[in-house]
Amino acid sequence: MNSNPPDSRAARAALTRLIEPGDLTGSALVAVLGPTAALDLICGPEDRIPASLQQAVAETVGTGGTKALKVEAGLERWRPRVRDLAPARDLETMRRLGGGFLTPEDDHWPAKLDALGTAAPIGLWWRGRSESADLDAVRRRIAVVGSRDATEYGIRATHELVAPLVERGAQIVSGGAYGIDAAAHRAALASLTASSGRGQADPTMAVMAGGLDRFYPSGNDDLIRQVADHGIVLAEVAPGTSPTRWRFLQRNRLIAALCDVTVVVEARWRSGALTTARRAAEMGREVGAVPGSVFSANSAGCHRLIAEGAGRVVTRPEDVVEMAGGIERGPAPSASADGRAHDGLDIQDLLLYDALPVRTATTPDNLCRVAGLGIGAVLGGLSRLQSRGLAVQSRAGWTRGGAT
Amino acid sequence: MNSNPPDSRAARAALTRLIEPGDLTGSALVAVLGPTAALDLICGPEDRIPASLQQAVAETVGTGGTKALKVEAGLERWRPRVRDLAPARDLETMRRLGGGFLTPEDDHWPAKLDALGTAAPIGLWWRGRSESADLDAVRRRIAVVGSRDATEYGIRATHELVAPLVERGAQIVSGGAYGIDAAAHRAALASLTASSGRGQADPTMAVMAGGLDRFYPSGNDDLIRQVADHGIVLAEVAPGTSPTRWRFLQRNRLIAALCDVTVVVEARWRSGALTTARRAAEMGREVGAVPGSVFSANSAGCHRLIAEGAGRVVTRPEDVVEMAGGIERGPAPSASADGRAHDGLDIQDLLLYDALPVRTATTPDNLCRVAGLGIGAVLGGLSRLQSRGLAVQSRAGWTRGGAT
Repeated sequence: MNSNPPDSRAARAALTRLIEPGDLTGSALVAVLGPTAALDLICGPEDRIPASLQQAVAETVGTGGTKALKVEAGLERWRPRVRDLAPARDLETMRRLGGGFLTPEDDHWPAKLDALGTAAPIGLWWRGRSESADLDAVRRRIAVVGSRDATEYGIRATHELVAPLVERGAQIVSGGAYGIDAAAHRAALASLTASSGRGQADPTMAVMAGGLDRFYPSGNDDLIRQVADHGIVLAEVAPGTSPTRWRFLQRNRLIAALCDVTVVVEARWRSGALTTARRAAEMGREVGAVPGSVFSANSAGCHRLIAEGAGRVVTRPEDVVEMAGGIERGPAPSASADGRAHDGLDIQDLLLYDALPVRTATTPDNLCRVAGLGIGAVLGGLSRLQSRGLAVQSRAGWTRGGAT
Repeated sequence: MNSNPPDSRAARAALTRLIEPGDLTGSALVAVLGPTAALDLICGPEDRIPASLQQAVAETVGTGGTKALKVEAGLERWRPRVRDLAPARDLETMRRLGGGFLTPEDDHWPAKLDALGTAAPIGLWWRGRSESADLDAVRRRIAVVGSRDATEYGIRATHELVAPLVERGAQIVSGGAYGIDAAAHRAALASLTASSGRGQADPTMAVMAGGLDRFYPSGNDDLIRQVADHGIVLAEVAPGTSPTRWRFLQRNRLIAALCDVTVVVEARWRSGALTTARRAAEMGREVGAVPGSVFSANSAGCHRLIAEGAGRVVTRPEDVVEMAGGIERGPAPSASADGRAHDGLDIQDLLLYDALPVRTATTPDNLCRVAGLGIGAVLGGLSRLQSRGLAVQSRAGWTRGGAT
């Protein structure tokens, strides 16, 4: 039924002001009628909704006609805001601020948002580099989120995680908040000046809970402006909309949907970052959590995610690369195993190696007794150990070789 | 075929000197012939093993007749040590040291070791309180193991984990090594003097890799003596046997088998503690790992266990209690959730709560617009919020109540 007339773009811009993010009745109405007719219905005088439309909306949402999904109840929610509508002004405001408005009809609309189904946003307002506004470009996006009251540990962990990921070509997505979010954006922006030109053009994206005419929190205004200068800032609410608790929760679902992997660096037992992670897990996206001290309340949420099986342990950038199924041809992951001289020995040779004295040389007969091995096993084993430098033969007999 | 004659005890004592821990051919031979006949065979002159006996041993081990399981090859391993046999002297030595020797025929033999199957020890040497030598007493045993080069963080985590578990009646089992092992024993022993008599008689057990005539490492001699004075020290090797790498690995399987839960507090990427944890997991026992800083090499092994799904996240003693299926009637686990005033609100009321101004009072009409709700939802919601102290009505209108 979506007829997508020429003014559907302005209609969607208007609808982002009327309908709260995640209001499934509203999204379903737009899906069923198309944006222009949906807007006409909301702005019109009609209070009675035909049963067939109600039925179609309920079916689109897919949960049957529960009370919360009644279109008539929706009209009650949406209509008090009609008087504030000025979509042309909003579009002009955003153009002036160096941005725009993306709709699902645009080529640059991110296909990843399809995972949200009916809960996908009606449109996306953006500010930033116009090249960065191709949200459907093939690109690994990694969400790095966490506590506002981050610890020094969390900040450091964020930087050490983000820098190598950006260097490999990932875009770091976060929410522009204080703490871990800010550290993630900063670490990504730092790549622009670091590593002698290996930095990439749009290393980071901020997804906001309020309108993009003003950045929240104001203390991060400079930082988020930098994100816009070198990357992109998104919101699904119209300019002038204030961030509320509900909109933060819904913003989190956007971050989860936009990213291949969501990593929580620090989070308290209850934390908005956990909702981002859970939304990502529900969508089948990879979720990671950085462990920390059991005495730090700011790691309790990360440990909770891991304990509940919702998040995998992330201790190194390579863990995220693996979860993302690769990012690009970066340097090979550094070897993490500290192999030892005696690795790979079979049991008998390990027994023999243990029995070999470090200083005073001994005889094969003696080694039989000490190691509890037959003479054949000892002679054969000594030869194998010798070839690996683990046993040394002198005139006095045998001693251990190599590092312990 | 196990005839269990009167001298089977001395025979088992002898066999613990001849056969290395975990030597499945040896254990199977003992299972097939009984300890006395097995010892006679090893000490006798016969080199040729009847095919029927070889077959029975291979079937007992359950892996078919692979080369390593040939009884004739076993004789080559075991016979060089026959000249050192003196089981009566060993039993007397242990009696003199305040200990003894347990065999699977004893009532006090721990049934939990059945999980090892053929790899169960031939016997267990012990030193300690004779009351503590009832290893089959119904009692939760928790293994707490980890790095020798523990950090301050690991030591503290060990203490905070162990003390409440002991207070609830668990016995803490470890390996007597430096670092986490020592911290675990110490924390358990501390309960004897702490908590005004709520401490229990035998709070801890040490399982050693070498003979119990001398404690290893010597720097922990005093500590392990205290463990013996107030609990129990075990080994499956005869007195005078030195600890070797192989015996440490096999000792780890004993710790895993004896305990309901194995917790690794700190471990490097490769660490003996991980083998204990893996053996426990293979037996279907619960395994936990304490997370820590991603910058600490001593937590890398713990994170590895968790990442591989071999260990669950342990951040509090309650986690271990839960894994053990309870320990005894202890104090209820402390609530870990920091609930907030607005928890439990439905979506509409949460939207409304967010829309309520903190200072300047507002009208229901205004709230409709700000919250995006119909007037019915706003009036009903205000009433619900008011009843929870989350909305306050004055003559000027409505403001938010309660803590944010």
